[in-house]
Amino acid sequence: MKTHTEYLYFNTRHKREYIRITDKVEQAVRESGVREGMALVSAMHITAGVWVNDAEDGLLDDIDHWLESLTPYGSYPEIKWPKPGEEGPVNAVRHEYKHHRTGEDNGDSHLKSILVHHQVMVPITDGRLDLGTWQQIYYAEFDGQRRKRVIIKVMGE
Amino acid sequence: MKTHTEYLYFNTRHKREYIRITDKVEQAVRESGVREGMALVSAMHITAGVWVNDAEDGLLDDIDHWLESLTPYGSYPEIKWPKPGEEGPVNAVRHEYKHHRTGEDNGDSHLKSILVHHQVMVPITDGRLDLGTWQQIYYAEFDGQRRKRVIIKVMGE
Amino acid sequence: MKTHTEYLYFNTRHKREYIRITDKVEQAVRESGVREGMALVSAMHITAGVWVNDAEDGLLDDIDHWLESLTPYGSYPEIKWPKPGEEGPVNAVRHEYKHHRTGEDNGDSHLKSILVHHQVMVPITDGRLDLGTWQQIYYAEFDGQRRKRVIIKVMGE
Repeated sequence: MKTHTEYLYFNTRHKREYIRITDKVEQAVRESGVREGMALVSAMHITAGVWVNDAEDGLLDDIDHWLESLTPYGSYPEIKWPKPGEEGPVNAVRHEYKHHRTGEDNGDSHLKSILVHHQVMVPITDGRLDLGTWQQIYYAEFDGQRRKRVIIKVMGE
Repeated sequence: MKTHTEYLYFNTRHKREYIRITDKVEQAVRESGVREGMALVSAMHITAGVWVNDAEDGLLDDIDHWLESLTPYGSYPEIKWPKPGEEGPVNAVRHEYKHHRTGEDNGDSHLKSILVHHQVMVPITDGRLDLGTWQQIYYAEFDGQRRKRVIIKVMGE
Repeated sequence: MKTHTEYLYFNTRHKREYIRITDKVEQAVRESGVREGMALVSAMHITAGVWVNDAEDGLLDDIDHWLESLTPYGSYPEIKWPKPGEEGPVNAVRHEYKHHRTGEDNGDSHLKSILVHHQVMVPITDGRLDLGTWQQIYYAEFDGQRRKRVIIKVMGE
């Protein structure tokens, strides 16, 4: 059995940024010598995510806008839904994240991290990442402009 | 240490469909000979998901409607929340997914995939899937009517 | 190669509760003797989650309110978005979860479980959990006041 560990470092220019890291994971697998197994790719921060999806700029923009709608910066929405069974207008009141009482302003980044999940497992077959044609691994930064880390842990034989 | 790999193929009749695959994963584990370890069950496409939840038709219908509300087909919602601290009506404008400029019409399927996650790890104890009483493994198709794949990678001893 | 399995039991006082379990996972890793590998931490129920995020009470409250807004107790929201391209008010009708026809009242708990995911993989390096400074492992109970379980499966060498 073999294991191999690497850390990737990021310091993004923008608060939110989506960075393709498939090649770096592939390289870590190559260096591990593992032919059959799995690679864990996991953000080491609580305001970042890791996902597998398309490398297509339009989609990344869609994801970014959608996330910001569901988990807006600054204040989270308490939605006032109509009564059960009745169709009606949706109201909301936005509360500043209680988390901000700690002096932080990144409550939304934590929610985004939970929503997209902070890690993936990538299968390794025959020494290569066993991904579908369009699957690419992304690091999702939700509170950047500072040093962040991702761990790659390869395990197999 | 042992590893074992299998692929499941799907070609659903509907655009969205939820297929129970617990038995197929159990069978892959049996064939692997692994007594203690884990099985990764991971969609190989970016418009599909894998989850563990209840095998109950009513709930599957609830999940489907809820997902379609949060990630609607055709256009994503940019939600205009009231100002922080104020209760008020929620407005929105729906933008066609930028992803559709590539000729695709499945922007919503990508968001659904990210929302539910595309994979699970199933623990193996004593040669069996170590799942709770009500836990069932599901393949969630969000853009079907074409050939799709799931990888099962078993690892352990 | 080594494996090691433990089960954690919970019986929360409240319907929803968020319990830090990092120390228990760390202890399981210590008992496993694994120096390099991974620990799967996975809820064995379909109305619970496991996540890695901040141990900060304000944030836990934010997460709880945000989840309840997106997946409300009792009835799920079918959102009536404005027409594509038009900005307008958002309407909704709330339908009782079909799942409740089984006699349950926890449809929302299932959605919350899917939204936050029910498991994490924790990397192990040098015999310790290889987590970032602020990363803590949480068990998220969405339908408590009854006996629930989490499995910890450690694998490595």
